[in-house]
Amino acid sequence: MTRSNTPQADIPLPDADRLLEAAIAAADAAGCVIRPFFRSGVAVDDKSDQSPVTVADRTAERTIRAILAERLPDHAVLGEEFGLERAGSRWCWVIDPIDGTRAFVTGRPTFGTLIALLDDGVPVLGIIDQPITGERWIGVRGRPTRYESRLPGAIGTRRCTDLKLAELSCTSPEMIEGAPTPHWDALRRAARRVTWGGDCYAYGLLALGQVDVIAECTMKVWDWAALVPIIEGAGGRVTDWHGRPLRAEGDGTVLAVGDPAILADAVSLLNSGLPAH
Amino acid sequence: MTRSNTPQADIPLPDADRLLEAAIAAADAAGCVIRPFFRSGVAVDDKSDQSPVTVADRTAERTIRAILAERLPDHAVLGEEFGLERAGSRWCWVIDPIDGTRAFVTGRPTFGTLIALLDDGVPVLGIIDQPITGERWIGVRGRPTRYESRLPGAIGTRRCTDLKLAELSCTSPEMIEGAPTPHWDALRRAARRVTWGGDCYAYGLLALGQVDVIAECTMKVWDWAALVPIIEGAGGRVTDWHGRPLRAEGDGTVLAVGDPAILADAVSLLNSGLPAH
Repeated sequence: MTRSNTPQADIPLPDADRLLEAAIAAADAAGCVIRPFFRSGVAVDDKSDQSPVTVADRTAERTIRAILAERLPDHAVLGEEFGLERAGSRWCWVIDPIDGTRAFVTGRPTFGTLIALLDDGVPVLGIIDQPITGERWIGVRGRPTRYESRLPGAIGTRRCTDLKLAELSCTSPEMIEGAPTPHWDALRRAARRVTWGGDCYAYGLLALGQVDVIAECTMKVWDWAALVPIIEGAGGRVTDWHGRPLRAEGDGTVLAVGDPAILADAVSLLNSGLPAH
Repeated sequence: MTRSNTPQADIPLPDADRLLEAAIAAADAAGCVIRPFFRSGVAVDDKSDQSPVTVADRTAERTIRAILAERLPDHAVLGEEFGLERAGSRWCWVIDPIDGTRAFVTGRPTFGTLIALLDDGVPVLGIIDQPITGERWIGVRGRPTRYESRLPGAIGTRRCTDLKLAELSCTSPEMIEGAPTPHWDALRRAARRVTWGGDCYAYGLLALGQVDVIAECTMKVWDWAALVPIIEGAGGRVTDWHGRPLRAEGDGTVLAVGDPAILADAVSLLNSGLPAH
């Protein structure tokens, strides 16, 4: 069984060490920027889509951009706060400086800095960095995912061949109100339990074998790009709600499973409200 | 302005240091019991109400009971997992060994051990302990709340005189499906934003001035008893959805506000769907 639904998933990424070094330098610096703002009473602005943003988001994204531009001046960069620079490159870094700004502004140590590299639209490298707990997930195409952490936990999704036994996770019910299909609740009823909140952190927990399935929507490319190599390098799968590879021009749905055996049932439930079997 | 709606709130607790020492010893030991089970793949049993429980919950509660019984043999103890011992004492310890077992079993470091002391039904001492991040909130009637932590943060609820500016928090929408009034959504619409998840940890964040209002229901006495002295000693208020002091025989609703100025509006919205002003 291949680990992924993208055909190149097992092909090593050329020049991976240099690319990873740049990503790690950017994540280190972003953490240094963000930490002093955590629980500091930082002002929160509402963006046009009503999502919150702070000076920590903006300064962290500028910091990541500065480091990537210095090391990889030919690569494009797309970030949540400042858009696309150097369009047209085959290589595009995709950044969410603080994924889970709601969690960040309410003092929860479960937000994350997301840094991903896309090769012609396909995520080949991803980092989730949690700068308060000191947790970092590193995914690189063709390599097993790494987890560097002060907290316990080991990389590897867990076996879960039946949705009845699955721990489901979702960031918020408001997100599901915008779903393109009405069947998220069918998945919820089929699963053993649902836990709310988490943003990118929940995907990190899936890569640690703590969560079995996550189904979310209204997700932008910077919300999911880093998650793909991390979850695939831990044994899981990430697709849209139709089971297709994620694309920037997709419908914003994201479905992650720890055990690929439950992917078909999850896709069926999300689309027809009925399991595949 | 008094800090609380309980008349004795500013009267120092007699023998507080000895009682607090026992509670801290119990919290320390519970953390030692729980930590090795975190992200360890511990088996999860479903209780009759479908809520999850593990050997970590049960062993931590037994440990807390052993320490309290040795130090305070005349006091009653009521715990989520093993019921009431030594009924009839004026003093009753109320324990939830792992509040947020869903968070615990999915690897989130946002569950908490709750230890409270009730004097004739009124909470006079409370601890929230998060043994993974190393955060502890300590509330004692008549004293300012303390926060001992490896993470940033300082005790003190924040000013928020208008619900429009309030960060609302709630553990899960499933909890609200069991609400005794249909108006939780009116509160959600009145608030600036809602963040999901958190269990007791969200109340700790309210005491740190990170969250402004929490409205939950289906709460048992062991879910809320420890929160009352912590939030009141940080400048906030905790009542039921009618604005009344919490009681073990109450309706299971809990409303916490950081700034007492928004309590009346929150109570009105929860009961009529309309603000008080």
